[in-house]
Amino acid sequence: MKLIENIAQLATCRAEGGQSEVHAVADAAMVWEGDTIRWVGPRRELPAEYQGAERLDAGGRLVVPGLVDCHTHLAFGGWRADEFTQRIEGAGYLEIARAGGGIARTVRLTREAGEEALYRRARAFVREMVALGVTTIECKSGYGLDREHELKLLRVYRRLAESEPVGIVPTFLGAHVVPPEYRERREAYVALLVDQLIPEVAARRLATYCDVFVEESAFSVEEGRRILLAGQAAGLASRLHADQLTSCGGAELAAEVGALSADHLEQVSDRGIAAMAESGVVAVSLPIASLYLGSTAMPARRLIGAGVGVAVATDFNPGSAPSYHLPFAMTLACTLQRMTPAESLKGATFFAAKALGLEQRVGSLEAGKAADIALMDAPDLQTWLYHLRPNACLLTVARGRIVWQAPDRRESGELA
Amino acid sequence: MKLIENIAQLATCRAEGGQSEVHAVADAAMVWEGDTIRWVGPRRELPAEYQGAERLDAGGRLVVPGLVDCHTHLAFGGWRADEFTQRIEGAGYLEIARAGGGIARTVRLTREAGEEALYRRARAFVREMVALGVTTIECKSGYGLDREHELKLLRVYRRLAESEPVGIVPTFLGAHVVPPEYRERREAYVALLVDQLIPEVAARRLATYCDVFVEESAFSVEEGRRILLAGQAAGLASRLHADQLTSCGGAELAAEVGALSADHLEQVSDRGIAAMAESGVVAVSLPIASLYLGSTAMPARRLIGAGVGVAVATDFNPGSAPSYHLPFAMTLACTLQRMTPAESLKGATFFAAKALGLEQRVGSLEAGKAADIALMDAPDLQTWLYHLRPNACLLTVARGRIVWQAPDRRESGELA
Repeated sequence: MKLIENIAQLATCRAEGGQSEVHAVADAAMVWEGDTIRWVGPRRELPAEYQGAERLDAGGRLVVPGLVDCHTHLAFGGWRADEFTQRIEGAGYLEIARAGGGIARTVRLTREAGEEALYRRARAFVREMVALGVTTIECKSGYGLDREHELKLLRVYRRLAESEPVGIVPTFLGAHVVPPEYRERREAYVALLVDQLIPEVAARRLATYCDVFVEESAFSVEEGRRILLAGQAAGLASRLHADQLTSCGGAELAAEVGALSADHLEQVSDRGIAAMAESGVVAVSLPIASLYLGSTAMPARRLIGAGVGVAVATDFNPGSAPSYHLPFAMTLACTLQRMTPAESLKGATFFAAKALGLEQRVGSLEAGKAADIALMDAPDLQTWLYHLRPNACLLTVARGRIVWQAPDRRESGELA
Repeated sequence: MKLIENIAQLATCRAEGGQSEVHAVADAAMVWEGDTIRWVGPRRELPAEYQGAERLDAGGRLVVPGLVDCHTHLAFGGWRADEFTQRIEGAGYLEIARAGGGIARTVRLTREAGEEALYRRARAFVREMVALGVTTIECKSGYGLDREHELKLLRVYRRLAESEPVGIVPTFLGAHVVPPEYRERREAYVALLVDQLIPEVAARRLATYCDVFVEESAFSVEEGRRILLAGQAAGLASRLHADQLTSCGGAELAAEVGALSADHLEQVSDRGIAAMAESGVVAVSLPIASLYLGSTAMPARRLIGAGVGVAVATDFNPGSAPSYHLPFAMTLACTLQRMTPAESLKGATFFAAKALGLEQRVGSLEAGKAADIALMDAPDLQTWLYHLRPNACLLTVARGRIVWQAPDRRESGELA
């Protein structure tokens, strides 16, 4: 049994109260046993039965639920840094694609990469994410785009789930774009996904979710519907890349098929927002991509106003969002999407967990839930997300185990 | 004598070639002795006389000049995180100021803070900055706004310059805003600055520069001119906060008085740009403030196009730019100001040094200059600034001494 105490502020982030209510407890304590939380509350109310637990001192700092990154493309070959420079110099998406760049380039590099190399690289990313306080990571395939290489990516995620002490939840995104070799026969690619790959991925238990990029340059609403329903038939819950570049009905489709989440939504329509609210679909905002693409941010205020829960994730990928820094994405959600720090935190914890259908287990600090905890070097939530630092996380606990501890020298060490 | 080798890319950032030319050397090596660089070049050309030097292995990574943060408000009391939330919720600058917030609040908290506490806190910030690869830091007063507390801040900087192994260069910013107690008699405050504080600060050698915030809400062009000329008469070089919120002639004044730099410039006029180009004034861009205020970014492309050198700095302060993460500011200069990674690096090295009048000593890797070096965990400059990480810096050398070394576990350790 373990007890963490001397917590200046603990944000439980439990469901009640919606986006802006993080249920902050001052001078808090928390007890866990094995991988499960036993008790959370004001320190003065600590039940006698827990007084003997092994004690950790939070040093008068902030404790939040282990963060949930509910949208990443974690395993891929190569980088595309030169395209970053080309975009700054004015090159358009199509121009870069015509020169062999864009997603197709990452597909090429990912197909060339060995499974072991992809695993080691993704593992290094995971470890850096854990040091930031992240304890659950959704990971998409989608840079293989054929049987061999999609399965290779999903096996990398399975291996990570086994080797790393945090939650790794895999998504099959065979429907990322139509691969080059199917450009003239896209129907055959959709058929490959629906008839072969989705059933095989599900049968091998290599994915929990099925995702589709619904966009003019990727898959139509009709194709998306077919793919997502095939996923559901095989037991894979639905999620979508929706309305990123154009308002093309992705949000409406998410609501129609009962998807867990619709992600991006920079161009979502009012009708799409209403449909999502009605169906309880979570909107996943990806502000790092908005920053890197110089595009409009997701209209988070309109979504929240309509009653849609908004998650915040990194979208980590080698093109439009080359950063896995989730607290940085959370600060960007404040500056670019006008979400308050409380709304942003609830978005990277409870609503991110809900976007994964895991809210019964992770994303909030409550008795009975997973002991996933991050200790931040800040006196409170507002200060943490406003004072953007390289890394404010001092301690990460995943499933009850300490999986990251910062070196000693930290700002607050000097702040007494 | 020390030698660093196995450098995949070394960007010397020397003056020639302007903003976009960083003079990258592939498979480079560098030699220094004491605090001074002796030789830089391709490894195969290393002169025989240096073969016996003590060797450091860069591991096939990127070496850049120690970064120069040429605009910070490093020492202050308190934070203003609640105002961050209030701004997100729609509160305006004036509304926050009327409620006792804004700069006036930091002035109150800074006056209340003891010198020792301010020193320890600023020292902690400096050490985190050094871990990011920063080796020269400009530090402004301006939250004291009376004799006692302005001198207190400048003494904090003097003490930092003595205790910390990096360059700390102080700026007197008594003309930050008119303090509350002078609101009805601003002329008396300007007279205090010009007749008493500037001469005293200069006589005590507590500052190198004199800065003025030229803005409708702060000081007029006429007041700014008087203050800057008084500074010059006392031996303090000029720098300005110019054209941040309104285009009010700050850039033109900077050119007229021969200032080293004009900073902010979000609203700079074409006339101001032409005048700066003519006079060789460096434009200091502060993209973190643009992000946090949701304002237009400095028109870097127009400035560079006109031949003005553009520096990149953090503007670290507790209101509009609560981050000292200079590499993050450099990435924002790319995304928000459309500067290429090369232009951004030259902005945080050579042009930042020029903005401080220190380009003969720091800001580039050349024989005879200070051995200020940062080793980044990236194969090249583009990848470093595009793949935004908590901290990519593995090693910081300042004046020839290793002042920061990262713990072992880093991405590239896994990338072999």
